[in-house]
Amino acid sequence: MLNVIRADSSDIPAADRGLAYGDGLFETIRMRGRQAVLRRLHLDRMVADAARLGIPVDRRDLDAAITQAGFDYESGFEGFDWVLKLILTRGNGGRGYRLPEICQPHLIVSVSAMPALPDNGGVVADCSRFPLTVNPQLAGIKTLNRLEQVMASREFTGKEFELIMRDSAGNLVEGTRTNLFVRHGDKWLTPPAGSLAVAGVMRKYLIDCLRETGHEIREETVPPSILSLPGFRGLYLTNSVVGIVPVRIMSGVDLPVDCGLETICDPLQTLE
Amino acid sequence: MLNVIRADSSDIPAADRGLAYGDGLFETIRMRGRQAVLRRLHLDRMVADAARLGIPVDRRDLDAAITQAGFDYESGFEGFDWVLKLILTRGNGGRGYRLPEICQPHLIVSVSAMPALPDNGGVVADCSRFPLTVNPQLAGIKTLNRLEQVMASREFTGKEFELIMRDSAGNLVEGTRTNLFVRHGDKWLTPPAGSLAVAGVMRKYLIDCLRETGHEIREETVPPSILSLPGFRGLYLTNSVVGIVPVRIMSGVDLPVDCGLETICDPLQTLE
Repeated sequence: MLNVIRADSSDIPAADRGLAYGDGLFETIRMRGRQAVLRRLHLDRMVADAARLGIPVDRRDLDAAITQAGFDYESGFEGFDWVLKLILTRGNGGRGYRLPEICQPHLIVSVSAMPALPDNGGVVADCSRFPLTVNPQLAGIKTLNRLEQVMASREFTGKEFELIMRDSAGNLVEGTRTNLFVRHGDKWLTPPAGSLAVAGVMRKYLIDCLRETGHEIREETVPPSILSLPGFRGLYLTNSVVGIVPVRIMSGVDLPVDCGLETICDPLQTLE
Repeated sequence: MLNVIRADSSDIPAADRGLAYGDGLFETIRMRGRQAVLRRLHLDRMVADAARLGIPVDRRDLDAAITQAGFDYESGFEGFDWVLKLILTRGNGGRGYRLPEICQPHLIVSVSAMPALPDNGGVVADCSRFPLTVNPQLAGIKTLNRLEQVMASREFTGKEFELIMRDSAGNLVEGTRTNLFVRHGDKWLTPPAGSLAVAGVMRKYLIDCLRETGHEIREETVPPSILSLPGFRGLYLTNSVVGIVPVRIMSGVDLPVDCGLETICDPLQTLE
């Protein structure tokens, strides 16, 4: 049985393993009225990744929590889109890191207003100096272990929409809160799922959408040199709240902004 | 001003960044009556590592929290040693990963009984199949990002006191909750601080103690092959609660147990 905790009316037990060890994961969902953007993909990811962590959860309980949140919170946002955050933790207990004998997960539900959306003309990005290290067994899971992203975010100066994190070889992997897509010639590239700290649902949607619309999309390592190669046509940042954001200036260098990923794929068509 | 939260009487705000991102760190301290074992080293580490994370905290506030916990909780353990856990988080707030403009950390204080101490004759250990990945910028910090240790702990079968985690090259790095010391010939070895997920205060104490008593102790990579080299004389696991524990059987192979690290260094002499 899933223990649902509304963050606006309840605190969290101090024994929650999400606090103690980051033993859980989360989804951040864009809501329009009572409907969720990319609902099925959010549920798919949360169920699949909870299984990877061994946290038992029933998809129907998560689905019901989204529906309930839509009823409970829609009116507070007066017609504007809003953001639903679901944190799923392994619950309380256990001796140290060891799992409790009976696992009773917590689902912590909180909401917030939409962040300011960036200018359509593209955003400013830079590279973070904080390296990204991905455990292959946890790759892609939006776990509660996000200290690397927090530390990278300390470098924001106020000029950048996003800071791009690199692996130990210097390859561009992902932003602090976004995934990357590169347009090179007629191909699209995005770093492989196995290299990612977080494999976003928007990333999944866009890969599927590009394939369905006849585009070539490859999951490949993205070295920073690609941005200055002949044939480079654009860099995009994506997440499920802000959608698809072209980068206009990267590390102080003007980039072309002309490929229209947002005109090929429109995630707002997925409202459920 | 440090906001101290007693876990036995208060819940945690759902907006705590420790829950959201593992944005914090912790200490687990062995207490004897009102006194703390390795008190100065625990305070040294917590203050130094909070500074690495950019979490503002005054050492005197942490020291006072240990003293207060000694007064508050000693009597509940009826003369037995007990365990004090201090979780320091960056507090509430911020937009996503970004830090709040004003950081008001939380110190969450909880206590527990001592775990069962292992047999003096040595314990059974094995290797975890879960790989350990250490971000060089976070190496050694006992952060709240401990999902790797949780996942490794799922492999305990009930026979092992500890599971040893390895890096991507297969070197022995640390246990899920302990550091490693190897006796090889007349030298002691322990993996370098920069390779560790958690650099324990007991490890620090033992390195200092071995040096002060004229022993040679090197911080070096520990390949598993060292356990079968001529001259190998013992493998020890250490942490600040259980102390120093020799390994009697590693991955099913009997090891020599004869070097007496626990007779060279006695952390219980550090009570303050």
